[in-house]
Amino acid sequence: MTGKDGLERRIAVGRGDAPADLVLRGARTLDLVTGALLEGDVAICDGMIAGTCAAYEGVQTRDLSGLTLVPGFIDTHLHIESSLVTPFEFDRCVAPHGVTTAICDPHEIANVIGAEGIRYFQRASEHTLMDIRVQLSSCVPSTHMETAGAALSAADLAELRGHPSGIGLAEFMNYPGVIHRDPDVMDKLRLFEGGHVDGHCPQLSGRDLNAYIAAGISTEHEATTAEEAREKLQKGMRVLIREGSVSKDLHALQPLLTERTAPYMCLCTDDRNPLDIGEEGHLDYMIRTLIGLGTPALAAYRAASLSAAEAFGLKDRGLIAPGKRADIVAVGSLEACDVRAVFCGGVEATAEAFAARGTVAPVARRSVHARALEAEDFRSGANKAETDVIGIMEGKILTEHLREDIAVEDGDKRPDPARDLIRIAVIERHGKNGNIATGFVRGFGLQRGAIASTVCHDHHNIACVGVDYADMALAANRLGEIEGGFVVASGGEVLAELALPVAGLMSLEPFETVRASLEQLRRAARGLGVTLNEPFLQLAFLALPVIPALKITDRGMVDVVKFEIIA
Amino acid sequence: MTGKDGLERRIAVGRGDAPADLVLRGARTLDLVTGALLEGDVAICDGMIAGTCAAYEGVQTRDLSGLTLVPGFIDTHLHIESSLVTPFEFDRCVAPHGVTTAICDPHEIANVIGAEGIRYFQRASEHTLMDIRVQLSSCVPSTHMETAGAALSAADLAELRGHPSGIGLAEFMNYPGVIHRDPDVMDKLRLFEGGHVDGHCPQLSGRDLNAYIAAGISTEHEATTAEEAREKLQKGMRVLIREGSVSKDLHALQPLLTERTAPYMCLCTDDRNPLDIGEEGHLDYMIRTLIGLGTPALAAYRAASLSAAEAFGLKDRGLIAPGKRADIVAVGSLEACDVRAVFCGGVEATAEAFAARGTVAPVARRSVHARALEAEDFRSGANKAETDVIGIMEGKILTEHLREDIAVEDGDKRPDPARDLIRIAVIERHGKNGNIATGFVRGFGLQRGAIASTVCHDHHNIACVGVDYADMALAANRLGEIEGGFVVASGGEVLAELALPVAGLMSLEPFETVRASLEQLRRAARGLGVTLNEPFLQLAFLALPVIPALKITDRGMVDVVKFEIIA
Repeated sequence: MTGKDGLERRIAVGRGDAPADLVLRGARTLDLVTGALLEGDVAICDGMIAGTCAAYEGVQTRDLSGLTLVPGFIDTHLHIESSLVTPFEFDRCVAPHGVTTAICDPHEIANVIGAEGIRYFQRASEHTLMDIRVQLSSCVPSTHMETAGAALSAADLAELRGHPSGIGLAEFMNYPGVIHRDPDVMDKLRLFEGGHVDGHCPQLSGRDLNAYIAAGISTEHEATTAEEAREKLQKGMRVLIREGSVSKDLHALQPLLTERTAPYMCLCTDDRNPLDIGEEGHLDYMIRTLIGLGTPALAAYRAASLSAAEAFGLKDRGLIAPGKRADIVAVGSLEACDVRAVFCGGVEATAEAFAARGTVAPVARRSVHARALEAEDFRSGANKAETDVIGIMEGKILTEHLREDIAVEDGDKRPDPARDLIRIAVIERHGKNGNIATGFVRGFGLQRGAIASTVCHDHHNIACVGVDYADMALAANRLGEIEGGFVVASGGEVLAELALPVAGLMSLEPFETVRASLEQLRRAARGLGVTLNEPFLQLAFLALPVIPALKITDRGMVDVVKFEIIA
Repeated sequence: MTGKDGLERRIAVGRGDAPADLVLRGARTLDLVTGALLEGDVAICDGMIAGTCAAYEGVQTRDLSGLTLVPGFIDTHLHIESSLVTPFEFDRCVAPHGVTTAICDPHEIANVIGAEGIRYFQRASEHTLMDIRVQLSSCVPSTHMETAGAALSAADLAELRGHPSGIGLAEFMNYPGVIHRDPDVMDKLRLFEGGHVDGHCPQLSGRDLNAYIAAGISTEHEATTAEEAREKLQKGMRVLIREGSVSKDLHALQPLLTERTAPYMCLCTDDRNPLDIGEEGHLDYMIRTLIGLGTPALAAYRAASLSAAEAFGLKDRGLIAPGKRADIVAVGSLEACDVRAVFCGGVEATAEAFAARGTVAPVARRSVHARALEAEDFRSGANKAETDVIGIMEGKILTEHLREDIAVEDGDKRPDPARDLIRIAVIERHGKNGNIATGFVRGFGLQRGAIASTVCHDHHNIACVGVDYADMALAANRLGEIEGGFVVASGGEVLAELALPVAGLMSLEPFETVRASLEQLRRAARGLGVTLNEPFLQLAFLALPVIPALKITDRGMVDVVKFEIIA
């Protein structure tokens, strides 16, 4: 086809005047517009679909007899860092689940090293099989009530624009700053005015929600009840149903997802670890669970692809139709969403294809710069018994603001595992100020020892919970030695650990290795009494002060409802 | 609100921290996403919606108690010239029917005077109450088989880009040129690659349709059967249901419009004259007719607004929700679609508001440059009896290719009104070559006299039908005197006429005057035996060689299926 450009070649292939690069043969195609199952070949040319519903000849032919083709799934909001692996391993782990587009917000790494972290994801997106779209992080740090490793201003964001992976501004978490028109927030909103801005406004409603949406924010993934999601839908937001490793909203929002609403609803994972991806799946898990709960298959698959493409202005995907990217998933049955083959821009996601990708050197090594801690650093002095306690709600990143009486002994409020009241501490680790804040949390079930982590949303300082101060110091100090990660310690020994040397967030190991380490960590945590299914991510989110109601940062306990640090 | 920009002010108004410019009170709002009827005020600020579903205070309040609010209607494809009035009169005529956005293709005027005609519409769009979006005409002339007043190359289109009224490339009518990859067609497609390109491909299917869509063409309004429309939908096109004055596809396509498909279907009028607008309505007529035929109201209103906004990437409209343009229609009942008030970008469409608009001087005056015609110019010589005859299909712009035996007498085939076989002629009128082509048409019912018109798609030469050659010459010559328009003549006298001095296409009179003239013209035509409901537009489309099957241009009879002039 020498001398013809891609467009001309695609028309020729579509008409049958030239052979396709690849023909998918023998499968039926689910048409997401009419709901029909269509017969005929799918002809692919230069990574795009040139023809459907007809007979085609191709240089290569892939027999998919007996299978059903659906458009590739689009994860509409996630932090790849939460998979604990690099974008390359994320690609290899998740594409086989049918995810051909991942719209990520790299604000975890950006909180550690700033713009260079975003550029790392941008560069990585040029090599992955799936199409990784890199939104620009709007809130680094998430608020003024934490110490992050870096900050991104509107001017910094302006310099990051223009990469082909970009769509717009990532989740605007500082919703109080939006509705109160903070100057730096306005600068960022103006920069993206008329463009795409993702939302994050848990529990916002009424005129406050109107103000937030009037700012030009069009998507939202924090609704945890159908009522909350319905108001957001009725005010024009695209509601992204989220099912992460901690934030599990699928069951609550499923009743709202019907054929009527599906064009305006999407799916996302936000934060999902490789254990859950391995055990349950990814968007494929969400699709089959939704259908199992009674959602019409057409609505589930629309939300997973076409509606997502529409919501984000990705006009080149979301349907298996001429002129679209050849992002195609072959499943055994629509109900089971059992993925048998995945094509990303016409390239089948196989071991060979993953091996043939280019790569990018990791960034943000040696990012843990905390001072050496001792047991007494974890004491929590006070002069009255009434104590603010973070109440964990398992499966949610929302927390309860509890108040418990805890006696002051020897100038310290001691953990009381019998009442499930254990110490939580956040230790600044970017080498900025050496802050340490302490408080109480209920819900881990921890009976002895300690757990520490550099995954600590979004500032990614060190989060540590424990019953024994010496074990807390041991676990936290160990993080400095392994360049960050997760540590479980008890009785003066490290029981399990996972090194995450890329920004203290991502492993350099294959995802299978990370999965095995997480299993060991979970077992170790359970051995210390932990009852939570996902203690590490659940711990990480206790530090995120843009999710109600009570959180903790390196600067202290945060009343998120009042949006202030508790004195 | 001095010192605050629009964005900041809108957030403040949304939150209730500042008064709205205008509050709509007392009505219910149809939410097109969930189908719910919502209570509460709508707050408007700087022409945009700042808040819904809450109580608001405003500088002005408009009581709409008892009414239902729906998003403003979007006509997704039309030629404003076919309304026979200027864009300003079109605005005044059609906005009160609830149309707040009209996506027009100015290719009628462009065929007469080229780029300057498009610039006229672009400039007019800056002053109208409704938002007129001006697509760039892709096919001027529509084919190589006609003489137009001007031609637009890809380079010409490149210079016309950048006006805020633009979305993309208007209907690509030269579908044979697309699927055969004609070089000039490819130049235009490449110029708009990745952007928006409107389609026009009547009866195209199978691999030919695949090729056309693979070229990046995303909308289509020429489907005349549900089967044709279904294939286009299933291949990813947005199907625009058309109900013009001649092309009436609503009844045929209505069964395809359901809640399932509505997000991917739209409404358009293409070519609708002010008589029909006055007698039936505009998109309001389509909506109430669809609902009357059994279409769910939600599906009809979605197609009329939200789905249209999505199809054309108009992210700022299609819903009554914060952050959207205040394009709002108040109806008495959803079923009747009886429009009681219309707000275009927050401005109510009242006589005062229309009077307050700015204006633009008309262009393309004195555009009729045909030679003086005599009766014998209309003779049609031939040497065999078998004759190609255009068979009119009332209510369609498609025609039948008939073959009739017509005797040659005195070197001429005479009209035979008893068999409803009358003369049709197209006379070049741009002063280019003086061409005249003659042929036969069946379907008018004309028994005597003649009808002539400078509205003659898309080249807009003079189209003339008649039984009497002298009357044909009289009618055609009269058009030169009145700067174009419509003329009905019989017995050597002009019986009725309408001057259209703007490019021979548009009147300078108010639409009410044009409507009265059209009534007279129709009466005069009926008096001559014409049985067609809309003889003038029906005549005009007999000259359009991109609609099957048999047409006529100044160069001769055109076999559209073979895409060639009949020798």
